[in-house]
Amino acid sequence: MKRLINNPETIVEELVEGYTKAFSDKVKVSNNDKRVVTRTDLKDDKVKIVIGGGSGHEPMFLGYVGKGLADAAVIGNINTSPDPFSVFNAIKEVKPNKGCLLLYGNYMGDVLNFDMAQDMARDEGYEVESVQITDDVTSNENKSERRGIAGDFFVIKAASAAAEKGMNFEEVLNIAKETNKNTSSMGVALGAAEDPRSGKLMFDLEDGFMEIGMGLHGEAGIRRGEIESIDEVVEEILDPCLKDLELKDNDEVAVLINGLGATAYMDLFIMNKKLNQILSDKNIKINKTFIGNYATTMNMPGQSITLLKLDEKLKELINYPAEAPYFTQY
Amino acid sequence: MKRLINNPETIVEELVEGYTKAFSDKVKVSNNDKRVVTRTDLKDDKVKIVIGGGSGHEPMFLGYVGKGLADAAVIGNINTSPDPFSVFNAIKEVKPNKGCLLLYGNYMGDVLNFDMAQDMARDEGYEVESVQITDDVTSNENKSERRGIAGDFFVIKAASAAAEKGMNFEEVLNIAKETNKNTSSMGVALGAAEDPRSGKLMFDLEDGFMEIGMGLHGEAGIRRGEIESIDEVVEEILDPCLKDLELKDNDEVAVLINGLGATAYMDLFIMNKKLNQILSDKNIKINKTFIGNYATTMNMPGQSITLLKLDEKLKELINYPAEAPYFTQY
Repeated sequence: MKRLINNPETIVEELVEGYTKAFSDKVKVSNNDKRVVTRTDLKDDKVKIVIGGGSGHEPMFLGYVGKGLADAAVIGNINTSPDPFSVFNAIKEVKPNKGCLLLYGNYMGDVLNFDMAQDMARDEGYEVESVQITDDVTSNENKSERRGIAGDFFVIKAASAAAEKGMNFEEVLNIAKETNKNTSSMGVALGAAEDPRSGKLMFDLEDGFMEIGMGLHGEAGIRRGEIESIDEVVEEILDPCLKDLELKDNDEVAVLINGLGATAYMDLFIMNKKLNQILSDKNIKINKTFIGNYATTMNMPGQSITLLKLDEKLKELINYPAEAPYFTQY
Repeated sequence: MKRLINNPETIVEELVEGYTKAFSDKVKVSNNDKRVVTRTDLKDDKVKIVIGGGSGHEPMFLGYVGKGLADAAVIGNINTSPDPFSVFNAIKEVKPNKGCLLLYGNYMGDVLNFDMAQDMARDEGYEVESVQITDDVTSNENKSERRGIAGDFFVIKAASAAAEKGMNFEEVLNIAKETNKNTSSMGVALGAAEDPRSGKLMFDLEDGFMEIGMGLHGEAGIRRGEIESIDEVVEEILDPCLKDLELKDNDEVAVLINGLGATAYMDLFIMNKKLNQILSDKNIKINKTFIGNYATTMNMPGQSITLLKLDEKLKELINYPAEAPYFTQY
């Protein structure tokens, strides 16, 4: 293994403690649940946003709790949904008097547990709704059946900005649904992450090979083959996103080029050169570009492209100020 | 190889193009030199900061050009100093009428080429000074002979903030020297980066082994052995930094836990738990913590700790607002 660990049994508690100690001006662990992290500056007068999923995708979930972003994140074990009681604790912790929106990637375990928590919260009188994020274009022909991958970031960003601006619950819910509908992603895996509990690779992918469309946890992609050039891969993974969003002349997008954890920034920047050429040739305008490790699987080599089709409203929300430990903009 | 590339001959030009296209509101490539990237909002009335070194350490150098950070970055080929003419072009590009400070890690090639550029610039009447960053505590007993590693970030941050605040050339130069003097780093390598030109690992380090104190490019560390727990490694690499800075009861520091490119964020957060315990036990106060991939070697597995001993002046400069593509704070 090319990683250091302490006790495999306490990884998540240790990461939460280390994380919240680093950024204690912005975030804190709930006193009631060690898997729940909230903003230190929770406000009464806004719709609350709770995000979450398995651990191992850092900075995704914990890193996007903060001003202009989520109010709380709740995390499970590595690649495992958070417990429904933890999700319920997160809902209670943010004291939602104007509604609470749950945002998470569309994975079976997450759907079951977040739904159970939603039911528990509703039974106690909380107003709670959920949006499952479904941006991975190759994972299913049917949009609503798709997995959520790095596009989570755009849905969290837009819905959280809407809440921060003071939009009401229905408006924030609609923004989350609309952002999800307009977000498409596709990735390429070049290898597996090392599971720190077993010391083993999470799946097999021979050195020098790639799997186009593979999911964050090793879910099957659409084809496996020898690695090709960055330009060829960008063409292959960008095209389904362009088609899915029916992007045409004069449309405007936000772009996220995401590293899965063990990919050189250099390679991500080079991807952006080709992506720019393709979009420019089609006269599709790029309003804003994000490049980096936004949603990882620990130390997995690979990368993905996410496009968000923008209208004026989404453009404003994506560019709205935010100040969380892993995303800040003026 | 677990990376995608295009043409090995054009990697640096492609990465610069992809990078500057992504963040064209903040940075641009020089018209005179494709290895020089400057702020789009260069100001006349401040000391200019030019940073640089080899490519492959992204986001280091290019990512820290922006408001409150450097005015320009100049980069060479992978792990290779920039050409002296490129450094000279960077100096001319930022139009320094109040002096130009060159900041770079202390590597032989960089020293030779930045010094040559400094001489060329002085011959044409420019006021130029240099500070070599020497934070890697294990690389030499003599501080001035040490290599620069992730501590570059603190020196660049503090000196750039001083320049942005309007301090004069001598003051900015002194801030850079003082920050460097008060910065100590130590790292651990868990493997090598893959060189995208050859497709080969840059050095040999058997899986399951670590080298304590190894440099970014594979420079010899102080010992090699089987991997140990995060807590043990944190103790081992933090202690020399504490001793080097002669930190004692009631001192205050900034902390940087840096991933070298292929290290899970999870592991970096867990490091911070132990680091906090150790500093808390010694009653050393942490003013600010930075965790992430600040200075990488492409996809190298490993991590480092950097401490900066603070006084009131450095504290203000480290917390001063900045807005660059890879570092933003209010």
